Amino acid sequence: MKELVEAICKQGVGVGTDVVKVDMFLNHRLDTALYVKMGQAFADAFLEYQPEIVLTVEASGIAAAITTAMACGNIPVVFAKKSPTRNVTGDVYESRVYSFTHGVENHIRVDKEYLPKGAKVLVVDDFLANGEAAEGLCDLVNQSGGEVIGVGICVEKSFQPGRQKLQDLGYRVISLAKITGIVDGKLQVKE
Amino acid sequence: MKELVEAICKQGVGVGTDVVKVDMFLNHRLDTALYVKMGQAFADAFLEYQPEIVLTVEASGIAAAITTAMACGNIPVVFAKKSPTRNVTGDVYESRVYSFTHGVENHIRVDKEYLPKGAKVLVVDDFLANGEAAEGLCDLVNQSGGEVIGVGICVEKSFQPGRQKLQDLGYRVISLAKITGIVDGKLQVKE
Repeated sequence: MKELVEAICKQGVGVGTDVVKVDMFLNHRLDTALYVKMGQAFADAFLEYQPEIVLTVEASGIAAAITTAMACGNIPVVFAKKSPTRNVTGDVYESRVYSFTHGVENHIRVDKEYLPKGAKVLVVDDFLANGEAAEGLCDLVNQSGGEVIGVGICVEKSFQPGRQKLQDLGYRVISLAKITGIVDGKLQVKE
Repeated sequence: MKELVEAICKQGVGVGTDVVKVDMFLNHRLDTALYVKMGQAFADAFLEYQPEIVLTVEASGIAAAITTAMACGNIPVVFAKKSPTRNVTGDVYESRVYSFTHGVENHIRVDKEYLPKGAKVLVVDDFLANGEAAEGLCDLVNQSGGEVIGVGICVEKSFQPGRQKLQDLGYRVISLAKITGIVDGKLQVKE
Protein backbone atom coordinates (compact mmCIF):
# COMPACT_ATOMS: atom_id res chain seq x y z
CA MET A 1 0.00 0.00 0.00
CA LYS A 2 1.53 3.20 -1.25
CA GLU A 3 0.61 5.39 1.77
CA LEU A 4 2.01 2.84 4.23
CA VAL A 5 5.26 2.48 2.30
CA GLU A 6 5.60 6.27 2.30
CA ALA A 7 4.97 6.45 6.06
CA ILE A 8 7.61 3.78 6.70
CA CYS A 9 10.17 5.51 4.45
CA LYS A 10 9.49 8.93 5.95
CA GLN A 11 9.02 8.11 9.63
CA GLY A 12 10.28 4.57 10.28
CA VAL A 13 13.69 3.93 11.81
CA GLY A 14 15.89 0.85 11.65
CA VAL A 15 18.17 -0.11 14.52
CA GLY A 16 21.03 -2.52 13.92
CA THR A 17 20.20 -5.19 11.37
CA ASP A 18 16.73 -6.24 12.45
CA VAL A 19 14.91 -3.84 14.82
CA VAL A 20 12.16 -1.84 13.10
CA LYS A 21 10.73 1.19 14.88
CA VAL A 22 7.41 2.36 13.44
CA ASP A 23 5.63 3.26 16.65
CA MET A 24 5.13 6.88 15.58
CA PHE A 25 2.30 5.81 13.29
CA LEU A 26 1.63 2.09 13.75
CA ASN A 27 1.81 0.86 17.33
CA HIS A 28 2.02 3.56 19.97
CA ARG A 29 0.85 6.66 18.16
CA LEU A 30 -1.69 5.61 15.52
CA ASP A 31 -2.12 7.46 12.23
CA THR A 32 -5.90 7.21 12.05
CA ALA A 33 -6.28 8.03 8.35
CA LEU A 34 -3.65 5.40 7.52
CA TYR A 35 -5.46 2.82 9.65
CA VAL A 36 -8.72 3.52 7.80
CA LYS A 37 -6.94 2.92 4.49
CA MET A 38 -5.27 -0.25 5.76
CA GLY A 39 -8.66 -1.59 6.89
CA GLN A 40 -10.05 -0.89 3.42
CA ALA A 41 -7.09 -2.63 1.80
CA PHE A 42 -7.67 -5.78 3.89
CA ALA A 43 -11.37 -5.70 3.02
CA ASP A 44 -10.50 -5.36 -0.69
CA ALA A 45 -8.18 -8.36 -0.43
CA PHE A 46 -10.37 -10.68 1.63
CA LEU A 47 -14.05 -9.77 1.17
CA GLU A 48 -14.43 -12.36 -1.60
CA TYR A 49 -13.79 -15.07 1.03
CA GLN A 50 -16.69 -13.74 3.15
CA PRO A 51 -15.08 -13.18 6.56
CA GLU A 52 -17.52 -13.26 9.49
CA ILE A 53 -15.13 -12.34 12.31
CA VAL A 54 -11.84 -10.42 12.45
CA LEU A 55 -9.48 -11.98 14.99
CA THR A 56 -6.40 -10.23 16.37
CA VAL A 57 -4.33 -10.15 19.54
CA GLU A 58 -4.07 -7.32 22.03
CA ALA A 59 -2.91 -4.62 21.99
CA SER A 60 -1.65 -3.07 18.81
CA GLY A 61 -3.58 -5.39 16.50
CA ILE A 62 -6.89 -3.95 17.68
CA ALA A 63 -6.78 -0.75 15.62
CA ALA A 64 -6.19 -2.61 12.35
CA ALA A 65 -8.81 -5.19 13.28
CA ILE A 66 -11.57 -2.67 13.87
CA THR A 67 -10.94 -0.58 10.76
CA THR A 68 -10.88 -3.83 8.76
CA ALA A 69 -14.12 -5.00 10.39
CA MET A 70 -15.74 -1.67 9.52
CA ALA A 71 -14.67 -1.96 5.88
CA CYS A 72 -16.04 -5.53 5.81
CA GLY A 73 -19.53 -4.26 6.71
CA ASN A 74 -19.21 -3.95 10.49
CA ILE A 75 -18.51 -7.61 11.25
CA PRO A 76 -17.41 -8.24 14.86
CA VAL A 77 -13.83 -8.17 16.11
CA VAL A 78 -12.48 -10.62 18.66
CA PHE A 79 -9.12 -9.98 20.27
CA ALA A 80 -7.13 -12.69 21.99
CA LYS A 81 -5.76 -11.79 25.41
CA LYS A 82 -2.16 -12.28 26.39
CA SER A 83 -1.01 -13.64 29.68
CA PRO A 84 2.23 -15.15 30.95
CA THR A 85 0.28 -17.91 32.69
CA ARG A 86 -1.65 -20.87 31.39
CA ASN A 87 -5.39 -20.81 31.92
CA VAL A 88 -6.66 -23.79 33.88
CA THR A 89 -10.37 -23.62 33.14
CA GLY A 90 -11.74 -25.25 30.03
CA ASP A 91 -13.76 -22.32 28.74
CA VAL A 92 -11.08 -20.83 26.50
CA TYR A 93 -9.07 -21.73 23.43
CA GLU A 94 -5.43 -21.17 24.20
CA SER A 95 -2.15 -21.18 22.29
CA ARG A 96 1.48 -20.57 23.25
CA VAL A 97 3.27 -17.68 21.54
CA TYR A 98 6.94 -16.95 21.93
CA SER A 99 7.87 -13.26 21.67
CA PHE A 100 11.33 -12.82 20.15
CA THR A 101 11.09 -9.06 20.85
CA HIS A 102 10.63 -9.52 24.58
CA GLY A 103 12.24 -12.94 24.97
CA VAL A 104 9.23 -14.35 26.80
CA GLU A 105 6.55 -16.93 26.20
CA ASN A 106 2.95 -15.75 26.40
CA HIS A 107 -0.29 -17.60 26.32
CA ILE A 108 -2.96 -16.09 24.10
CA ARG A 109 -6.55 -17.05 24.69
CA VAL A 110 -10.08 -16.46 23.47
CA ASP A 111 -13.32 -17.25 25.24
CA LYS A 112 -14.84 -20.24 23.47
CA GLU A 113 -18.20 -18.56 22.99
CA TYR A 114 -16.70 -15.74 20.89
CA LEU A 115 -15.14 -18.05 18.30
CA PRO A 116 -18.08 -20.17 17.16
CA LYS A 117 -17.59 -23.45 15.33
CA GLY A 118 -17.60 -23.10 11.57
CA ALA A 119 -16.94 -19.34 11.51
CA LYS A 120 -14.93 -17.84 8.66
CA VAL A 121 -12.21 -15.86 10.38
CA LEU A 122 -9.87 -13.21 9.03
CA VAL A 123 -6.72 -12.95 11.16
CA VAL A 124 -5.24 -9.43 11.26
CA ASP A 125 -2.13 -8.10 12.97
CA ASP A 126 0.03 -5.02 12.74
CA PHE A 127 3.33 -6.84 12.36
CA LEU A 128 4.73 -10.09 11.01
CA ALA A 129 8.29 -11.13 11.80
CA ASN A 130 8.76 -14.69 13.04
CA GLY A 131 5.05 -15.41 12.69
CA GLU A 132 4.50 -16.59 16.24
CA ALA A 133 1.48 -14.38 16.98
CA ALA A 134 -0.26 -15.03 13.66
CA GLU A 135 0.39 -18.76 13.94
CA GLY A 136 -1.06 -18.75 17.46
CA LEU A 137 -4.16 -16.92 16.26
CA CYS A 138 -4.67 -19.43 13.43
CA ASP A 139 -4.24 -22.22 15.97
CA LEU A 140 -7.08 -20.75 18.07
CA VAL A 141 -9.33 -20.72 14.99
CA ASN A 142 -8.45 -24.33 14.20
CA GLN A 143 -9.19 -25.39 17.78
CA SER A 144 -12.63 -23.79 17.47
CA GLY A 145 -13.47 -25.68 14.29
CA GLY A 146 -13.46 -22.41 12.35
CA GLU A 147 -11.79 -21.57 9.06
CA VAL A 148 -8.93 -19.09 8.62
CA ILE A 149 -9.86 -17.36 5.36
CA GLY A 150 -6.66 -15.35 5.38
CA VAL A 151 -4.02 -13.50 7.33
CA GLY A 152 -3.73 -9.73 6.86
CA ILE A 153 -0.57 -8.02 8.07
CA CYS A 154 0.18 -4.30 8.01
CA VAL A 155 3.97 -4.46 8.02
CA GLU A 156 5.96 -7.59 7.21
CA LYS A 157 9.65 -8.04 7.91
CA SER A 158 10.24 -10.15 4.84
CA PHE A 159 13.79 -11.02 5.90
CA GLN A 160 12.36 -13.04 8.79
CA PRO A 161 10.61 -16.41 8.43
CA GLY A 162 7.01 -15.55 9.44
CA ARG A 163 5.43 -15.51 5.99
CA GLN A 164 7.10 -18.74 4.90
CA LYS A 165 5.94 -20.50 8.06
CA LEU A 166 2.32 -19.38 7.56
CA GLN A 167 2.32 -20.24 3.87
CA ASP A 168 3.77 -23.69 4.61
CA LEU A 169 0.80 -24.22 6.91
CA GLY A 170 -1.49 -23.38 3.98
CA TYR A 171 -2.60 -19.87 4.92
CA ARG A 172 -3.22 -17.05 2.47
CA VAL A 173 -1.03 -14.13 3.65
CA ILE A 174 -1.39 -10.52 2.50
CA SER A 175 0.89 -7.80 3.83
CA LEU A 176 0.53 -4.13 2.96
CA ALA A 177 4.25 -3.30 3.11
CA LYS A 178 7.40 -5.39 3.22
CA ILE A 179 10.57 -4.35 4.95
CA THR A 180 13.29 -6.23 3.14
CA GLY A 181 16.22 -5.11 5.24
CA ILE A 182 17.97 -2.34 7.13
CA VAL A 183 20.94 -0.51 5.64
CA ASP A 184 22.72 2.12 7.76
CA GLY A 185 19.63 2.68 9.92
CA LYS A 186 17.43 3.10 6.84
CA LEU A 187 14.52 0.75 6.28
CA GLN A 188 14.40 -0.87 2.84
CA VAL A 189 10.72 -1.09 1.89
CA LYS A 190 8.56 -2.37 -0.94
CA GLU A 191 4.82 -2.81 -1.48
CA MET B 1 -26.61 6.27 24.14
CA LYS B 2 -29.66 4.23 23.38
CA GLU B 3 -27.94 1.42 21.41
CA LEU B 4 -25.35 0.92 24.14
CA VAL B 5 -27.96 0.79 26.89
CA GLU B 6 -29.84 -1.80 24.85
CA ALA B 7 -26.70 -3.90 24.37
CA ILE B 8 -25.99 -3.80 28.11
CA CYS B 9 -29.58 -4.75 29.00
CA LYS B 10 -29.70 -7.54 26.44
CA GLN B 11 -26.21 -9.03 26.70
CA GLY B 12 -24.54 -7.74 29.86
CA VAL B 13 -24.34 -9.83 33.01
CA GLY B 14 -23.91 -8.79 36.63
CA VAL B 15 -22.04 -10.97 39.11
CA GLY B 16 -22.50 -10.40 42.82
CA THR B 17 -22.96 -6.73 43.68
CA ASP B 18 -20.25 -5.11 41.60
CA VAL B 19 -18.81 -7.24 38.78
CA VAL B 20 -20.04 -6.20 35.34
CA LYS B 21 -19.47 -8.56 32.42
CA VAL B 22 -19.88 -6.88 29.03
CA ASP B 23 -17.04 -8.56 27.18
CA MET B 24 -19.41 -10.03 24.57
CA PHE B 25 -19.63 -6.63 22.86
CA LEU B 26 -17.26 -4.20 24.59
CA ASN B 27 -13.90 -5.66 25.59
CA HIS B 28 -13.15 -9.09 24.22
CA ARG B 29 -15.58 -9.47 21.36
CA LEU B 30 -16.20 -6.00 19.89
CA ASP B 31 -19.52 -4.98 18.34
CA THR B 32 -18.07 -2.96 15.47
CA ALA B 33 -21.26 -1.06 14.56
CA LEU B 34 -21.71 -0.09 18.20
CA TYR B 35 -18.11 1.13 18.40
CA VAL B 36 -18.64 3.30 15.32
CA LYS B 37 -21.68 4.87 16.99
CA MET B 38 -19.85 5.38 20.28
CA GLY B 39 -17.01 7.13 18.45
CA GLN B 40 -19.55 9.41 16.79
CA ALA B 41 -21.18 10.16 20.15
CA PHE B 42 -17.83 11.18 21.66
CA ALA B 43 -17.10 13.39 18.65
CA ASP B 44 -20.55 15.00 19.00
CA ALA B 45 -19.85 15.70 22.68
CA PHE B 46 -16.29 16.98 22.42
CA LEU B 47 -15.64 18.39 18.93
CA GLU B 48 -16.47 21.91 20.10
CA TYR B 49 -13.37 21.75 22.34
CA GLN B 50 -11.21 20.96 19.28
CA PRO B 51 -9.37 17.78 20.34
CA GLU B 52 -6.06 17.21 18.54
CA ILE B 53 -5.18 13.79 19.98
CA VAL B 54 -7.23 10.93 21.44
CA LEU B 55 -5.41 9.30 24.34
CA THR B 56 -6.31 5.90 25.77
CA VAL B 57 -4.63 2.95 27.47
CA GLU B 58 -4.10 -0.51 26.05
CA ALA B 59 -5.80 -2.79 25.32
CA SER B 60 -9.55 -2.43 25.29
CA GLY B 61 -9.56 1.38 25.08
CA ILE B 62 -8.01 1.28 21.62
CA ALA B 63 -11.19 0.41 19.71
CA ALA B 64 -13.16 3.33 21.19
CA ALA B 65 -10.19 5.65 20.70
CA ILE B 66 -9.82 4.95 17.01
CA THR B 67 -13.52 5.19 16.14
CA THR B 68 -13.62 8.48 18.09
CA ALA B 69 -10.53 9.75 16.28
CA MET B 70 -12.14 8.88 12.93
CA ALA B 71 -15.30 10.77 13.86
CA CYS B 72 -13.16 13.77 14.92
CA GLY B 73 -11.69 14.02 11.42
CA ASN B 74 -8.94 11.38 11.60
CA ILE B 75 -6.91 12.96 14.39
CA PRO B 76 -4.17 10.66 15.77
CA VAL B 77 -4.60 8.18 18.62
CA VAL B 78 -1.96 7.60 21.25
CA PHE B 79 -2.27 4.65 23.59
CA ALA B 80 -0.43 4.41 26.87
CA LYS B 81 1.34 1.12 27.51
CA LYS B 82 0.95 -0.83 30.72
CA SER B 83 3.76 -2.51 32.57
CA PRO B 84 4.22 -3.83 36.09
CA THR B 85 7.65 -2.19 36.26
CA ARG B 86 8.75 1.40 36.48
CA ASN B 87 10.59 2.81 33.50
CA VAL B 88 14.03 4.12 34.36
CA THR B 89 14.79 6.18 31.27
CA GLY B 90 13.61 9.77 31.08
CA ASP B 91 12.02 9.62 27.65
CA VAL B 92 8.50 8.74 28.80
CA TYR B 93 5.70 10.26 30.86
CA GLU B 94 4.63 7.72 33.43
CA SER B 95 1.85 7.36 36.00
CA ARG B 96 0.91 4.71 38.53
CA VAL B 97 -2.49 3.04 38.14
CA TYR B 98 -3.94 0.60 40.63
CA SER B 99 -6.23 -2.04 39.13
CA PHE B 100 -8.97 -3.02 41.56
CA THR B 101 -10.08 -5.75 39.12
CA HIS B 102 -6.74 -7.51 39.14
CA GLY B 103 -5.43 -6.31 42.50
CA VAL B 104 -2.17 -5.09 41.01
CA GLU B 105 -0.41 -1.80 40.43
CA ASN B 106 0.60 -1.02 36.88
CA HIS B 107 2.66 1.76 35.42
CA ILE B 108 1.23 3.37 32.31
CA ARG B 109 3.54 5.30 30.05
CA VAL B 110 3.66 7.30 26.87
CA ASP B 111 6.68 8.27 24.83
CA LYS B 112 7.27 11.99 25.35
CA GLU B 113 7.41 12.74 21.65
CA TYR B 114 3.84 11.51 21.08
CA LEU B 115 2.26 13.84 23.63
CA PRO B 116 3.49 17.26 22.55
CA LYS B 117 3.37 20.26 24.87
CA GLY B 118 0.21 22.31 24.51
CA ALA B 119 -1.83 19.62 22.77
CA LYS B 120 -5.58 19.44 23.37
CA VAL B 121 -6.19 15.86 24.37
CA LEU B 122 -9.41 13.87 24.58
CA VAL B 123 -9.07 10.96 27.00
CA VAL B 124 -11.20 7.94 26.05
CA ASP B 125 -11.66 4.61 27.78
CA ASP B 126 -14.13 1.73 27.60
CA PHE B 127 -14.87 1.60 31.32
CA LEU B 128 -14.97 3.86 34.37
CA ALA B 129 -15.23 2.37 37.85
CA ASN B 130 -12.76 3.71 40.41
CA GLY B 131 -11.28 6.13 37.89
CA GLU B 132 -7.70 4.98 38.29
CA ALA B 133 -6.95 4.52 34.58
CA ALA B 134 -8.61 7.77 33.49
CA GLU B 135 -6.90 9.71 36.26
CA GLY B 136 -3.55 8.22 35.23
CA LEU B 137 -4.15 9.22 31.61
CA CYS B 138 -5.03 12.79 32.64
CA ASP B 139 -1.88 12.85 34.75
CA LEU B 140 0.21 11.95 31.67
CA VAL B 141 -1.37 14.84 29.76
CA ASN B 142 -0.66 17.25 32.61
CA GLN B 143 2.96 16.11 32.79
CA SER B 144 3.30 16.86 29.08
CA GLY B 145 1.98 20.38 29.44
CA GLY B 146 -1.09 19.48 27.41
CA GLU B 147 -4.74 20.16 28.12
CA VAL B 148 -7.36 17.49 28.88
CA ILE B 149 -10.39 18.78 26.97
CA GLY B 150 -12.56 15.98 28.32
CA VAL B 151 -12.90 12.37 29.36
CA GLY B 152 -15.15 10.09 27.29
CA ILE B 153 -16.21 6.79 28.80
CA CYS B 154 -18.28 4.08 27.14
CA VAL B 155 -19.68 2.39 30.25
CA GLU B 156 -19.63 3.97 33.69
CA LYS B 157 -20.28 2.11 36.92
CA SER B 158 -21.97 5.06 38.57
CA PHE B 159 -22.10 3.34 41.97
CA GLN B 160 -18.31 3.54 42.15
CA PRO B 161 -16.35 6.74 42.78
CA GLY B 162 -14.54 7.26 39.45
CA ARG B 163 -16.69 10.06 38.05
CA GLN B 164 -16.69 12.02 41.29
CA LYS B 165 -12.91 11.78 41.52
CA LEU B 166 -12.43 13.06 37.96
CA GLN B 167 -14.96 15.86 38.37
CA ASP B 168 -13.33 16.94 41.63
CA LEU B 169 -10.09 17.27 39.65
CA GLY B 170 -11.93 19.58 37.25
CA TYR B 171 -12.40 17.27 34.28
CA ARG B 172 -15.42 17.21 31.97
CA VAL B 173 -16.70 13.62 31.99
CA ILE B 174 -19.16 12.15 29.49
CA SER B 175 -20.26 8.52 29.68
CA LEU B 176 -22.53 6.86 27.16
CA ALA B 177 -24.24 4.50 29.60
CA LYS B 178 -24.39 4.31 33.38
CA ILE B 179 -24.71 1.10 35.33
CA THR B 180 -26.34 2.15 38.57
CA GLY B 181 -26.33 -1.22 40.31
CA ILE B 182 -26.80 -4.97 40.06
CA VAL B 183 -29.99 -6.62 41.27
CA ASP B 184 -30.21 -10.43 41.16
CA GLY B 185 -27.56 -10.65 38.44
CA LYS B 186 -29.35 -8.05 36.32
CA LEU B 187 -27.58 -4.83 35.42
CA GLN B 188 -29.49 -1.63 36.20
CA VAL B 189 -28.71 0.79 33.37
CA LYS B 190 -29.53 4.32 32.34
CA GLU B 191 -28.29 6.69 29.61
